[in-house]
Amino acid sequence: MSAPTAGQLADRRRRAVEAIIGLDAEGLLVTTLVNVRYLTGFTGSNGALLLAADGKDTFLTDGRYRDQALDEVPGLDHVITRDLLGEAAGRMSGVWACETHAMSVDAQATLTEAGVSTVPAARVVEGLREVKDDGEIDALRTACRISVEALRGLLAGPLAGRTEREVARDLEWRMLELGAEAIAFETILASGPNSAIPHHSPTDRFLQVGDLVKADFGARVDGYHADCTRTVVLGRADDWQREVHAAVQASQAAGVEALREDAPVAASDEAARGVLDDAGWLDRFTTGLGHGVGLQIHEDPFISHRHAGRLKRCTTLTIEPGIYVPGRGGVRIEDTVLVTSDVPEVLTTMTTDLLEIA
Amino acid sequence: MSAPTAGQLADRRRRAVEAIIGLDAEGLLVTTLVNVRYLTGFTGSNGALLLAADGKDTFLTDGRYRDQALDEVPGLDHVITRDLLGEAAGRMSGVWACETHAMSVDAQATLTEAGVSTVPAARVVEGLREVKDDGEIDALRTACRISVEALRGLLAGPLAGRTEREVARDLEWRMLELGAEAIAFETILASGPNSAIPHHSPTDRFLQVGDLVKADFGARVDGYHADCTRTVVLGRADDWQREVHAAVQASQAAGVEALREDAPVAASDEAARGVLDDAGWLDRFTTGLGHGVGLQIHEDPFISHRHAGRLKRCTTLTIEPGIYVPGRGGVRIEDTVLVTSDVPEVLTTMTTDLLEIA
Repeated sequence: MSAPTAGQLADRRRRAVEAIIGLDAEGLLVTTLVNVRYLTGFTGSNGALLLAADGKDTFLTDGRYRDQALDEVPGLDHVITRDLLGEAAGRMSGVWACETHAMSVDAQATLTEAGVSTVPAARVVEGLREVKDDGEIDALRTACRISVEALRGLLAGPLAGRTEREVARDLEWRMLELGAEAIAFETILASGPNSAIPHHSPTDRFLQVGDLVKADFGARVDGYHADCTRTVVLGRADDWQREVHAAVQASQAAGVEALREDAPVAASDEAARGVLDDAGWLDRFTTGLGHGVGLQIHEDPFISHRHAGRLKRCTTLTIEPGIYVPGRGGVRIEDTVLVTSDVPEVLTTMTTDLLEIA
Repeated sequence: MSAPTAGQLADRRRRAVEAIIGLDAEGLLVTTLVNVRYLTGFTGSNGALLLAADGKDTFLTDGRYRDQALDEVPGLDHVITRDLLGEAAGRMSGVWACETHAMSVDAQATLTEAGVSTVPAARVVEGLREVKDDGEIDALRTACRISVEALRGLLAGPLAGRTEREVARDLEWRMLELGAEAIAFETILASGPNSAIPHHSPTDRFLQVGDLVKADFGARVDGYHADCTRTVVLGRADDWQREVHAAVQASQAAGVEALREDAPVAASDEAARGVLDDAGWLDRFTTGLGHGVGLQIHEDPFISHRHAGRLKRCTTLTIEPGIYVPGRGGVRIEDTVLVTSDVPEVLTTMTTDLLEIA
């Protein structure tokens, strides 16, 4: 794990400029912070990038990050200002490609007032980010390894009698102790009837024998996010719990299996839903099947039957089908998976079998 | 601490509609998640709100939050969809006020294609959020109390010989143990030369005697954020450390003192900067002086000499001047402060005197 090299960053910027050639623009204004990070290596909380078609790039941030920017973003012109957009506008003229999927209406108006015309850049940087390089995959691999190690440690312990909040904190603490720079998102720890809530915030409910316990969690390493879900039973699973878990497990395996280079993104959705449909549970699957994961916990590609694209090698995605029965309980199983030239590689390497926990 | 009542939420929605009367719009489309939360009580990660001028409000979210929305947002029509904006557009016609400071250019285009005209709503909900009600103030008070209790525990020490990362984790753990639902933001823990970096991410540097150690941290309670910074010395402070700390302390006190009902927002900036200027350190103060704090860690009003407004009672703000000397060290002191009808009330109730820690 290490920060991208200057050469890698320059290459990303070159490819971003190439991606907008057809737009006949003076350059690309990058205002989405995570995309600024991807193209420059800057890890602060406020920044923008003028990516000029003629190769003269300008990085903008505020005074809090003056020194950090010199360290993280060498070789580019720097502008230190509290008015990123205004200063950027003053350096632009003609037509510029903009991240109109994220840039605000008011920001566009500021550019227009400065005499700059904008053209939509159509998730150009998000598209580049779909394909991870070796350094990014290393970071994701580490984040996933830490995540499942933390869960294994947690599941060794007694869980019954502790609250959802306590158990969630315990899991987070383990990830940090194992070297996560942060947790990837707020942990979902849902027990008993709460497991039927797809996105449940941990409460003071005490875990008890007989509960389904669902943990959706992950570690962050060098800015890269792991995303993993397992659902276990405290004590002995009953027949209903086994049935639901088996259906989700089979659905999840089918979804993972369909993550092949050049396969339609939608094929994974179709495969996973088909299994749930055959088992008679499809109407209880109420969320999306999965999503890209990397510098953001949710990023392109988002898996859906409407996605018309195909999978690229070195894309990382989650597959996370579930069955949610309000008032009774639910099961979700989720892995972070790498698309390779061959079989998909599961990065969250932990059994998906139903575990019965003391 | 408790969730806002149905009556409070209805009142907030009524005031939001009143605030757009002059815009001659059919209603306000609320797409900024934190504003959706403020107006509906919804705590999930995806939602929108159609606030119709005729009083018929519609809440939109996706299938993950179907049950949670029924629980948190009773009394409004619900639409469950993966295409919030498309479904909203289908229910709109004529002119609608929109949060154009945050809504994307592409989202506006979707509305336009659906035959909806948009008019900027000019941070209407952010304006309402500046004035906190009793429940919000209770949550902020609790978050601040937890934060300073956690810091007091941490400073009981020892600190020397531990890494910045370890100490940051320790502080965060203490906040969670004391009842924080989460940390308010990623803790800044900067030691020695790193203390000169205003926004520093904790590293594996070992704290050592003679260091300035700056901790910028906070707890989150019921969605409300505390924000506090203290800078201490490990061992005995030298003369330079004392001088810099005293200048920041005096500046911070002057900034806090100026937070009076009906006073210009800019007065606090002028007062705090004046003290640093008199002490000869103003050129080393490179960040903003402070900001509103509540459902967001940074929210309106942002303190600046350019802010033309006046302070309202029950607004909570941070005051956080600093002196940053690259390569040598830095000091920042920050409190979360409540504007009252009388003297400002510091919610992060802990001494700002220079502490020398074993």
